[in-house]
Amino acid sequence: MTRRTLRIALLGQGFMGRAHSNAFLQVEHFFDVPFDLELRVLCGRDPERLARMAATWGWQETATDWRRVVERPDIDLVDVALPNALHAEAAIAAARAGKIVLCEKPLALNAAESARMAEAARGVPTMVWFNYRRVPAVAFAHRLIEQGRLGRIYHYRAVYLQQWAMREDLPATWKLTRKQAGSGVVADLASHLIDLALWLNGPIREVAAMTHTFAVGRDVEDAGLFLARFENGSLGSFEATRFATGCRNRNAFEIHGSRGMLAFNLEDMNRLRFLDASDPEDVQGARDLLVTGPGHPYAEHFWKPGHIVGYEHTFIAALADFLVALSRGERFRPDFEDGHRVQVVLDAVERSAASGQWVRIPAG
Amino acid sequence: MTRRTLRIALLGQGFMGRAHSNAFLQVEHFFDVPFDLELRVLCGRDPERLARMAATWGWQETATDWRRVVERPDIDLVDVALPNALHAEAAIAAARAGKIVLCEKPLALNAAESARMAEAARGVPTMVWFNYRRVPAVAFAHRLIEQGRLGRIYHYRAVYLQQWAMREDLPATWKLTRKQAGSGVVADLASHLIDLALWLNGPIREVAAMTHTFAVGRDVEDAGLFLARFENGSLGSFEATRFATGCRNRNAFEIHGSRGMLAFNLEDMNRLRFLDASDPEDVQGARDLLVTGPGHPYAEHFWKPGHIVGYEHTFIAALADFLVALSRGERFRPDFEDGHRVQVVLDAVERSAASGQWVRIPAG
Amino acid sequence: MTRRTLRIALLGQGFMGRAHSNAFLQVEHFFDVPFDLELRVLCGRDPERLARMAATWGWQETATDWRRVVERPDIDLVDVALPNALHAEAAIAAARAGKIVLCEKPLALNAAESARMAEAARGVPTMVWFNYRRVPAVAFAHRLIEQGRLGRIYHYRAVYLQQWAMREDLPATWKLTRKQAGSGVVADLASHLIDLALWLNGPIREVAAMTHTFAVGRDVEDAGLFLARFENGSLGSFEATRFATGCRNRNAFEIHGSRGMLAFNLEDMNRLRFLDASDPEDVQGARDLLVTGPGHPYAEHFWKPGHIVGYEHTFIAALADFLVALSRGERFRPDFEDGHRVQVVLDAVERSAASGQWVRIPAG
Amino acid sequence: MTRRTLRIALLGQGFMGRAHSNAFLQVEHFFDVPFDLELRVLCGRDPERLARMAATWGWQETATDWRRVVERPDIDLVDVALPNALHAEAAIAAARAGKIVLCEKPLALNAAESARMAEAARGVPTMVWFNYRRVPAVAFAHRLIEQGRLGRIYHYRAVYLQQWAMREDLPATWKLTRKQAGSGVVADLASHLIDLALWLNGPIREVAAMTHTFAVGRDVEDAGLFLARFENGSLGSFEATRFATGCRNRNAFEIHGSRGMLAFNLEDMNRLRFLDASDPEDVQGARDLLVTGPGHPYAEHFWKPGHIVGYEHTFIAALADFLVALSRGERFRPDFEDGHRVQVVLDAVERSAASGQWVRIPAG
Repeated sequence: MTRRTLRIALLGQGFMGRAHSNAFLQVEHFFDVPFDLELRVLCGRDPERLARMAATWGWQETATDWRRVVERPDIDLVDVALPNALHAEAAIAAARAGKIVLCEKPLALNAAESARMAEAARGVPTMVWFNYRRVPAVAFAHRLIEQGRLGRIYHYRAVYLQQWAMREDLPATWKLTRKQAGSGVVADLASHLIDLALWLNGPIREVAAMTHTFAVGRDVEDAGLFLARFENGSLGSFEATRFATGCRNRNAFEIHGSRGMLAFNLEDMNRLRFLDASDPEDVQGARDLLVTGPGHPYAEHFWKPGHIVGYEHTFIAALADFLVALSRGERFRPDFEDGHRVQVVLDAVERSAASGQWVRIPAG
Repeated sequence: MTRRTLRIALLGQGFMGRAHSNAFLQVEHFFDVPFDLELRVLCGRDPERLARMAATWGWQETATDWRRVVERPDIDLVDVALPNALHAEAAIAAARAGKIVLCEKPLALNAAESARMAEAARGVPTMVWFNYRRVPAVAFAHRLIEQGRLGRIYHYRAVYLQQWAMREDLPATWKLTRKQAGSGVVADLASHLIDLALWLNGPIREVAAMTHTFAVGRDVEDAGLFLARFENGSLGSFEATRFATGCRNRNAFEIHGSRGMLAFNLEDMNRLRFLDASDPEDVQGARDLLVTGPGHPYAEHFWKPGHIVGYEHTFIAALADFLVALSRGERFRPDFEDGHRVQVVLDAVERSAASGQWVRIPAG
Repeated sequence: MTRRTLRIALLGQGFMGRAHSNAFLQVEHFFDVPFDLELRVLCGRDPERLARMAATWGWQETATDWRRVVERPDIDLVDVALPNALHAEAAIAAARAGKIVLCEKPLALNAAESARMAEAARGVPTMVWFNYRRVPAVAFAHRLIEQGRLGRIYHYRAVYLQQWAMREDLPATWKLTRKQAGSGVVADLASHLIDLALWLNGPIREVAAMTHTFAVGRDVEDAGLFLARFENGSLGSFEATRFATGCRNRNAFEIHGSRGMLAFNLEDMNRLRFLDASDPEDVQGARDLLVTGPGHPYAEHFWKPGHIVGYEHTFIAALADFLVALSRGERFRPDFEDGHRVQVVLDAVERSAASGQWVRIPAG
Repeated sequence: MTRRTLRIALLGQGFMGRAHSNAFLQVEHFFDVPFDLELRVLCGRDPERLARMAATWGWQETATDWRRVVERPDIDLVDVALPNALHAEAAIAAARAGKIVLCEKPLALNAAESARMAEAARGVPTMVWFNYRRVPAVAFAHRLIEQGRLGRIYHYRAVYLQQWAMREDLPATWKLTRKQAGSGVVADLASHLIDLALWLNGPIREVAAMTHTFAVGRDVEDAGLFLARFENGSLGSFEATRFATGCRNRNAFEIHGSRGMLAFNLEDMNRLRFLDASDPEDVQGARDLLVTGPGHPYAEHFWKPGHIVGYEHTFIAALADFLVALSRGERFRPDFEDGHRVQVVLDAVERSAASGQWVRIPAG
């Protein structure tokens, strides 16, 4: 029986283009992938850098006009790793051309856009690169929650703390420009927080938010904080900021339930802290789990127990899961529908920050 | 020259009565106290337990009617460690009788009460037992901030997480009864958070809050979360809860400023994490400071560097500072005026939680 | 029924005299002590400092000749907190005078001395102030081992790391003088390590050691390391040093057994790390136990769960246990016999360091 | 100008074969490699598994007779990832055939073998896969030491703790068979410890060791501990064991010097703890450095600051450094000469454990 080949076009030549390229190459080394992946076209705007990047990562061709690329008949899968402002147009064009569509997060500039994208993509397989669901420790957290090991959830607390934007004299790259990014930390960091929260703890019913720009003259917010009420009755606290001195990439959550506690921090991503409240009180304490196997998600695919995996492995594992779902005709999560649900919450956060009111999230 | 004797009446025979008794006895062992302390009267309602407690801690007499005690001419200092609902009446009576007045936190049931208390106490020395200001690591944090080591503050994040009230069948002790406690975690835990925040980071301008009671039938809130804007432009996030599985007494804060970062957790109270953003980037990281000397607050009074101090030492150090200020005729902080400022913020938190609106804090 | 009064003489006015004074005063505040303790005489060589210290801690008298004090008929208990070189003479004199004898660690300058002390004290109740057995977390570690929660022990690893003696220009106080201290870190730090090891893991059969003096001209060793074989078949590794930059008072051990693991560090003395190897592998990890109750040793005597205790509480708890044993006519551990067993191992360590050979420990 | 192609033969199809294959493929994605790497032949004994592995990792051919492979004229570089007992024969054959030779650690079964290997390889470029030198945090530790940031070294303490061999019923794979592995933890784990120690702290002068086999019937040691004296006057403590319950892969060291302290643990491999003793005492504490840039070794090659790298990246970085050295005609470290120096120390450890005597290491 011959395996199907997926011919890939990657739109984007930045940091994410590199992370995705690596995933496309590495996935078959660690997973039993049901497709042959062909790195057909790398598409970007800077021809010189594009050529170098294509050579490094083995892309067969380069192109500079993504509109043509997404319609090429020799492309099966389009991966959108462009600035946020281009996600909708590119992904919709690709979906309408019948392509499988992967898209970087956040899915869109706002919920109106993401709704159109999800609508356009109905019928084609999609994935949003919310890669942190595939951190082994996070996937294991999800499993413990699914198993009821935390019981009824009371508190969900999440922060995404970075410091790179503290200098006022930073050039206004696209992430620091509202028109291209949609918003600042809300789009960039809170989107990750919300995706994980919805996945781990279910829908959010309402939010009260504040946002702030510390850097003079910058047109996106540097910080966003919000309180939330989840459908399951638990209380949420969220904070995203690029002014957290001392924090490189602290994407962290902590969850308290009637039967246990979980805590995670991306800067220490191979670990999960887990407290089992059914342990006798005198030996009850947060357990420091090194989530590298045995028995942990993805552990048998990478190295041996105790052997650390890193940032790039989250992309590889996400892609592997997507390809398996694709081969089975199953829905992959998070898809564009999920990406849209995140966007709906982000919109509510921005509206609440603007109005100073609690804002309800319409049911999904 | 003879030293003045302070004749003390302690109102309260509970856990706090014990912590205060210990402080009254221990303070002169560790500090050069400018007074002789005489443990004259211990006042409570349960005569049998009262006699035992008086014998244990060396109180000369016991009494069951605090109204008489506070007016006794042979008492110089009245220490109010009664349930919250009795703070105002007892403290005001003591102040009007010209006594030095110490009072447990929170100062009152609400800001109206605390305003009356502060008013009544104008002219007498007062102290509110916000003991955590005197954790050596917290006092050292304050010193670093005063020295400008954190620069301009961007973020102030504080939580007070406990788990003792998660069982629904707990008896309705005074802390779980609105009439006696005023509120739940807002009065009990958020009061500590706010006192530290005001001390470390200055006045709060406005808050947006939510509170929640998880336990069916309980009439105080089990959890309270709020966002805040400080006068200095920094953003605050606060959470107090008794439903934080896995947390015994995590009173923790983290502060990010333009020049550094600080983090503290009461469950590890001899430590302070400090990041100096002026260190070269490659050797920049949070420093794990064991705040037991040399050079740290209170260090020369207790044991040697590396020798841990505990919960009770915060009361001892607070009392020592108060007595020194008293002997010098200086204002001690936090006094009733400070306790009232905390109450004003607590009221705003409760109003915001009720209304779903941001609530401004009137300037002090 | 009247309680017996114990009239106490404390020999020593240094740091340990202060820690013991505090214990004598505090023990009845936290424990139900079956005796009345009377702080009768404080004995030292510096009359002026002696008077101040007596006033601070409430000693009724002072004296400068310990030989007379230990024979006074109005003394029931003699507590020896003198430099090591004086332990034997003072303790033997006190024991011969029929006194209850407490002695600071290490018990003696060498095993010949400690043998004579144990011999002389046969018939009188004794205690050696190896206070770290009474750290709640250490006592809890002992309980877990006794319960078989660690199974068969494979490895016992202990370090005592300090840095205070790194400066070469330190004055030659008694701890840095062989004649008065017996040895350097072996007497001062390794004695603690060995007492805990013998208590937690049983007798040591043989050792191979090395010692070293880094500071030019100093006549005691600055560092001592040794390997050990225990009677129970486990392997031991020990290191004591005053040249461990960055370590204030890291007295730490880690134990690996067939059924679990334990780790402790005195700089974080309210915590114990415990791994239960019978947990399912995917949720198996070192548990961070905050050993402040409920269910932990001494927890109900001090404050509430989550409320930290400190260095001084180890002395209080040791004294409380001693007094209870005394009232019941039971043997207290560690007594002079135990102190002698430590000394026997210390001697073997020194002989091995000198000879470069493994040295067997004679059975106890 | 055309780039030279290196045609590679990999001997070994186990775990290490996989780690090396990954490095050969990935190195050019992250580093500017001065060669084209051609994965020519994968050589092993199990043809079926060999074919699958070759397909997965893109090896052009497979072979089952390494003796023929190492002599093939179309091979430039031979990578030996066979069981230890085959290292010498294969590496010597490859070297005599004029190939570049890479070899897994430990280099040989004993120092006699490694001496012959180093001798045979004189004149060909070699590398021993002591990959942990290329953990970014370890390389950064080395840099700090080279810069004198630790001053004069007093203590070097290292452990390698695993638990996988605790079950007595494990099959006798080659690592558990003396004939194939040479020894147990000494060859497997202590070799890593010694390579790092020699690199970070210089030559070892003498050792005193003990080894032990816990598992009945096993013919290699399960644990090995030794004390050491370094040429620079510092004292060393080493422990390697497969019976350390709770430890998956704790390869950790701690170094104390006159000017600072360093600590590292492979289970948390993106971090380095560094204390600078020249900081003022009150803000002196171990700094938690996230060694992912900026300014850290290899950081600009992998992802962004705060983005974790893992186990496999150590192989990639080692290979990259080797290829650069090769292109420049420079000596790469660690080469066979370095691997031999490790073996000399391992031999001394084994002799000391057998004799119970200190054993001197002949100068290099």
